[in-house]
Amino acid sequence: MAEETSAYAQRLERAAAAMAHAGVDVMLLGPGADMFYLSGFEHGHAGERLLALVLRRDGSASWIAPVMNVPQVLEHATPGQEVRGWTDGETYLPALRDALQGADTLAFDDEARAAFLLDVMGAAPAVRPRKAGGVMRGLRMRKDAHELNRLLAAAAQVDGAIPGAVATCRWTRMESEVDADLRRQLGGQTAFTIIAAGRNAALPHHETGSDLLNRGEVVILDFGTRFQGYHSDITVTCAIGEPSDPEVRTVYRVVWEAQQKALAAVRPGVPCEEIDRAAREHIAAAGYGDRFLHRTGHGLGLQIHEPPYLVAGNTEPLEEGMVFSIEPGIYLPDRFGVRLEVIAAVTADGVRLLNAPSAPELPIAAQD
Amino acid sequence: MAEETSAYAQRLERAAAAMAHAGVDVMLLGPGADMFYLSGFEHGHAGERLLALVLRRDGSASWIAPVMNVPQVLEHATPGQEVRGWTDGETYLPALRDALQGADTLAFDDEARAAFLLDVMGAAPAVRPRKAGGVMRGLRMRKDAHELNRLLAAAAQVDGAIPGAVATCRWTRMESEVDADLRRQLGGQTAFTIIAAGRNAALPHHETGSDLLNRGEVVILDFGTRFQGYHSDITVTCAIGEPSDPEVRTVYRVVWEAQQKALAAVRPGVPCEEIDRAAREHIAAAGYGDRFLHRTGHGLGLQIHEPPYLVAGNTEPLEEGMVFSIEPGIYLPDRFGVRLEVIAAVTADGVRLLNAPSAPELPIAAQD
Repeated sequence: MAEETSAYAQRLERAAAAMAHAGVDVMLLGPGADMFYLSGFEHGHAGERLLALVLRRDGSASWIAPVMNVPQVLEHATPGQEVRGWTDGETYLPALRDALQGADTLAFDDEARAAFLLDVMGAAPAVRPRKAGGVMRGLRMRKDAHELNRLLAAAAQVDGAIPGAVATCRWTRMESEVDADLRRQLGGQTAFTIIAAGRNAALPHHETGSDLLNRGEVVILDFGTRFQGYHSDITVTCAIGEPSDPEVRTVYRVVWEAQQKALAAVRPGVPCEEIDRAAREHIAAAGYGDRFLHRTGHGLGLQIHEPPYLVAGNTEPLEEGMVFSIEPGIYLPDRFGVRLEVIAAVTADGVRLLNAPSAPELPIAAQD
Repeated sequence: MAEETSAYAQRLERAAAAMAHAGVDVMLLGPGADMFYLSGFEHGHAGERLLALVLRRDGSASWIAPVMNVPQVLEHATPGQEVRGWTDGETYLPALRDALQGADTLAFDDEARAAFLLDVMGAAPAVRPRKAGGVMRGLRMRKDAHELNRLLAAAAQVDGAIPGAVATCRWTRMESEVDADLRRQLGGQTAFTIIAAGRNAALPHHETGSDLLNRGEVVILDFGTRFQGYHSDITVTCAIGEPSDPEVRTVYRVVWEAQQKALAAVRPGVPCEEIDRAAREHIAAAGYGDRFLHRTGHGLGLQIHEPPYLVAGNTEPLEEGMVFSIEPGIYLPDRFGVRLEVIAAVTADGVRLLNAPSAPELPIAAQD
């Protein structure tokens, strides 16, 4: 899983350069994607105990860690990176104060607990905090060859699961049963799953429940895995036998065409919002404009949602190596929804699909 | 799972009173324990899209939600609670600005993303943010009878899993295999698991891996479930056959006795730090003071770690209805560790164990 130590050293150098460019003195990152990107360290149990990588504009780095996590941090700290352990009785505030001494501007981990940021502001009231994402996005947004290989491996995991996933969509089963089967199939690499049947498919972020799947209903399966830190994310829409709502096939076609229009627009230099517009205009022209409830896509990598976002208002130009979902959807309240998602990578002159393409015709699950 | 609507109304009233007492104008809560406590709403997919419950000092409440989550929020919003949906193109910043208009002091969800707090500070620079935990802890720390029943049901889930969990600790198996068996046994209610064998048991927050279990080694099993929002959390230490390190049985005994000392100290009015001291002094007297790497316990409820914390420096007095872990541990680097955890509730005149008590003698897993 680990990069070469030299790869992390290079990333730290690039991060320090980005900090200098952004006028940031200190960057404080908790366990998560940014810390993993810069050090290979990840940890799931830190919770309300501060564990942080502290990077300074001069390129030097150190760690703050609960004393019981110090051995784990030491496995990833490179020579010269001090690891400061703190005990529950002492609290992390003294270490935080020392880390921020003399700092004017702090870049703080976007995904860390807000309580930690409030502690920072209390411990160092003169420090001006801003989002670490502003520093890190430029490093993480364009994926290198190693990262693309991991994203491809993760994409292959979900592609391989599609036939089995569709096959488990049988009437008289519950969403949660389909979900359990899918998770078994994906194994320990499962990152998330959403199974939304019937009218639940009209909710883009339905939470899988105990509703039964019925004949003629649409089922949306949205799922992803994590391979060596990098994610996959795919959405398939199928029906259990011939759909009972006559509009399903029309809507499916419109969504599929919108996805093709969006994909066709991808190439370096095109603003992110143009990809969204390509999909949205097609859906609007078909009369479903107000039923496309979300942006067309999100970046994918160490996080399931990360920059760039393909959304109205984002004028940022696409660059080679960016990886994101293309996932238009149409949602008809209390009836059904259709969403088709694939992952695209920007190449030197266009686009490369990391997944198998979405099926152009509605897949029908066997109705036994 | 849901409380009566009237229970939520009462909790909102108490929260508004706590805000007034603390001089807070607006409280902003994201999906998580505080939102669940006040509304019964929970949601796992919100991610970088702001979904918030906004409570005002006058007791009025409203919601900010991505437009695609509005139907889900409406199922929980009570009459009079406005739900303001925002689209990806519009962003949540206008809704945030409106929610904070005229506010001077804001209580912000401890567990929300720091990026949201930085957005708040950008959208309303004059607002003074502080931790919502300071308002909510007084409401959530003392569990009522309904909450205690859920904590008991969750505790019964982990108690029931102990014999099976110990039985799966056989040599030639990997930590991850024991983990998979345990998760299967706990089922969909699993909240977390840590399996730490041999020298890994010397790391209190070891991440379960592929190391093999060997004859004569100690295994720490730390796991919990979630029942209707409320958690269990237990730690068992066992050995695979007779322990090969002669100090294991001594250390086990010291930890068990420390746990009994801590439990015996629990009653209303005793400062939290006294419980920690009771355990720590016993361990120190046995010569292992510097190997007890963490506090004696943490509160348990809608979160796995929540107030009150049984830690040096916490002079807060125990009150009836508080629920927390008692989990002393001794960790000998590169050799082994022992931790014994049960959950205790403060009663009118003492303590009640929610779990079965820790075994006074080291459990030995069959060595087949």
